[in-house]
Amino acid sequence: MAVAFTDEKDHRAVAGFCRSGGALDRESAVRPREVEVLIVGAGLAGLTAARALDGAGISFAVLEARDRVGGRTFSRCVGDVVFDLGGQYVGEKQARILALARELGLHQSPTPHEGKTWIELAGRRASYRGAIPKLPISALLQVQLFLWLLDRAGREIPPGEPWKAANAARFDAHTVESWWRRFVVGRSARAMLRLTNRMTFGVEADEMSLLSLLQYTSSAHGLSHMTAIEHGSQQAYFVEGTQSLSTRISEKLGDRVVLGVPVRRIAQDDQGVSVHGDGGSWRARHVIVAVPPLLAGQIAYEPALPSARTALTQRFPAGAVIKCIALYERPFWRERGFSGELISDAGAVGYALDATKAGGPPALVGFMEGSTARAWSGTAPDERRRTVLTELARYFGEEALTPVEYFDQDWAAEPWTRGCSAGFAVPGALSRYGHALRAPCGRIHWAGTETAREWFGYMEGALESGERAAAEVLASS
Amino acid sequence: MAVAFTDEKDHRAVAGFCRSGGALDRESAVRPREVEVLIVGAGLAGLTAARALDGAGISFAVLEARDRVGGRTFSRCVGDVVFDLGGQYVGEKQARILALARELGLHQSPTPHEGKTWIELAGRRASYRGAIPKLPISALLQVQLFLWLLDRAGREIPPGEPWKAANAARFDAHTVESWWRRFVVGRSARAMLRLTNRMTFGVEADEMSLLSLLQYTSSAHGLSHMTAIEHGSQQAYFVEGTQSLSTRISEKLGDRVVLGVPVRRIAQDDQGVSVHGDGGSWRARHVIVAVPPLLAGQIAYEPALPSARTALTQRFPAGAVIKCIALYERPFWRERGFSGELISDAGAVGYALDATKAGGPPALVGFMEGSTARAWSGTAPDERRRTVLTELARYFGEEALTPVEYFDQDWAAEPWTRGCSAGFAVPGALSRYGHALRAPCGRIHWAGTETAREWFGYMEGALESGERAAAEVLASS
Repeated sequence: MAVAFTDEKDHRAVAGFCRSGGALDRESAVRPREVEVLIVGAGLAGLTAARALDGAGISFAVLEARDRVGGRTFSRCVGDVVFDLGGQYVGEKQARILALARELGLHQSPTPHEGKTWIELAGRRASYRGAIPKLPISALLQVQLFLWLLDRAGREIPPGEPWKAANAARFDAHTVESWWRRFVVGRSARAMLRLTNRMTFGVEADEMSLLSLLQYTSSAHGLSHMTAIEHGSQQAYFVEGTQSLSTRISEKLGDRVVLGVPVRRIAQDDQGVSVHGDGGSWRARHVIVAVPPLLAGQIAYEPALPSARTALTQRFPAGAVIKCIALYERPFWRERGFSGELISDAGAVGYALDATKAGGPPALVGFMEGSTARAWSGTAPDERRRTVLTELARYFGEEALTPVEYFDQDWAAEPWTRGCSAGFAVPGALSRYGHALRAPCGRIHWAGTETAREWFGYMEGALESGERAAAEVLASS
Repeated sequence: MAVAFTDEKDHRAVAGFCRSGGALDRESAVRPREVEVLIVGAGLAGLTAARALDGAGISFAVLEARDRVGGRTFSRCVGDVVFDLGGQYVGEKQARILALARELGLHQSPTPHEGKTWIELAGRRASYRGAIPKLPISALLQVQLFLWLLDRAGREIPPGEPWKAANAARFDAHTVESWWRRFVVGRSARAMLRLTNRMTFGVEADEMSLLSLLQYTSSAHGLSHMTAIEHGSQQAYFVEGTQSLSTRISEKLGDRVVLGVPVRRIAQDDQGVSVHGDGGSWRARHVIVAVPPLLAGQIAYEPALPSARTALTQRFPAGAVIKCIALYERPFWRERGFSGELISDAGAVGYALDATKAGGPPALVGFMEGSTARAWSGTAPDERRRTVLTELARYFGEEALTPVEYFDQDWAAEPWTRGCSAGFAVPGALSRYGHALRAPCGRIHWAGTETAREWFGYMEGALESGERAAAEVLASS
């Protein structure tokens, strides 16, 4: 297997290497910095917790492994126009993030989606208008049956505590696919459900526990709401980009947000907690770990965490998404009556959408997700570019091949994310060990969208989790 | 949640803390130690690789996180008698480990099992002689059907490459339980299969992919052979304990085995590979990572590993086992005609066996496994002791309550194991990403029993994997 190196990576390796023996280490080992609360991770969850502590006059520091804030939100400017390479869309039922955006002075704009949608599934290609995919009637009925049964099962889930459902063990013994295979038998319907799973969660239907899917959907007003644009959770975006939520919070917090510090070890004792990272050690009364379960599981804890917590983080992998954006001179798809929306299991791009930002150049966004994203992760950027553009051209026209600019973001390859859009639980995990998802372990509190009671996996859930973790700490101070 | 601290752990936290700024770090950061090959992990796989490289005259170092060698083999001496708290049993078909034991001067002794076995399943208790459990005929027939179908499916698995089976995706969409639920309907039969899964793998039947089970069983002559004592893989033990395999190899390797060095980061470049651990950095041409997939996934790699490899280690958790040994003055169970063998889903001890070593005091070993082990992991040792002894007393007599000595080993709580006896794959993982299990990534080679083609999960598999990884390195040098 060939290994490619970029200059940047070599440089980082060398820099990290030299730092390990540097002055910072020795100084902090002797005299660790002290605050009341340490927060690990400067994504939306961690920064929300920091804001809450700041408001309460509690001293804190936020330790972030990356050299930027925002976690799974990441924006890129092209001239004055901001494109989101991570979390982007918000919906009208997401009160926290809409309020935060207002407070920080961000502007909302509706997701463009006028025109016909392309669909290609199980070898059939068609276009249609409106919200009902053009599928054989029998397939539509089976998909509808799936949605009904899923909604019915979802109503059994106690909000935020799927492990307490009466049927938790039964739901959790199934993968999503082993569940719907019993009543969804048609080829097109199965293809649609596989693709829906892949494009909504970045995960294949045969990887994810049914109980994990129910945790997701029941916390977010159901699968139909999650995938809807009008009045749904894909309704709007922020003109300034979602990362600006984090950069604006972070500007106010100043040097209490420390970048470039991967946390390696957290040790509790009777008096407090020591947090050891590359570049120094800190001491506090409490710590809020605001990273995905998968990454939380990579930190060394002393004493060892309860076994249920360890088992859970071992069973909570992440999906995979490569988000690909192409900018054009003209909106050729709109000129032909298409919205830019594409649903397909025929190639590398499973889902596409018009990504034009208010006042910006015409743009399309294509998503590689689940096993497709895994297959394309780590490939040469040029090859990905060619593949994505060729795929878009098959539906929207030759013009797709010649963008003004193209860029993409491979989330599974990011060492401080390792997958997107969120973590999910494999069978047998959530019913047995789910109770450890947000239960504090001594002085350690857990945040991150995967610990949210509402809007699991969304930016909205990240905010809720940060508020909740900060409230826990304040209550126990 | 309360957090208990022992003095020992506090001490370790402080020691680790002080060390991070010590002289060793600075010196090695400036001048990394150089060898031809680095091996991460001094379990049986890593030490076998080291032996092979030593024989070929290649320079190497073995970096081990713990302050001992042996990984998942760990022995404890009581007077002159050695008890195994980890991997213990070997069978006549395991040529490598038998040859190694001979070479190192270890003595084999048969596993004691004369007498009646207790079984308690789904509320029924009985005792029996011989290899056929005393279950209702209908249950026996269903268990037999399961074994036949499992064997038939196992024959479809290309040796060591389950992901290449024609039906790989179909097998992998099932948990073990969602598969057998379709044809095993009786209460006793289901209880037996759940318990078999738990006690053979430390994993519940609804957690494990069917393809992962097939990987295990097809590599080890089938499930019946795996669970058998006579002529099976539980046939014998080593009088000197299995850890002595590792300590004796390690004595010969001398200071090339370095203890107390958790490896945190592995960076490849065109010329070689840098391995950074607590306490120093090393440089080599190749590295062999000989730790379970779960732990391999916790190391930071630069550049990032292929996505399939990352996805696989996220989907390869570990089972849980607490092995509990009680020593007695008299073999009271044998005096009543019992072998000491117990199969039960009624309490915390799922499986027990006579653990008397040749010439040693009478002993019983009880296993807490799977979700039971998770529930008891991290509890106070006194509480575990009381529970285990009470359970043994229910079957073998009051004398079980008053052992001369009791000790146990909670493998899931060990930070450098995090589960036992082996890793397993969750649904959807092995069919898609299994090809990354032992495929080298540039200069990084993978060993450990989970990468074995034969005897996956066994000490025998660890030896095979170490030999294979060393051969890969020699071939590419």
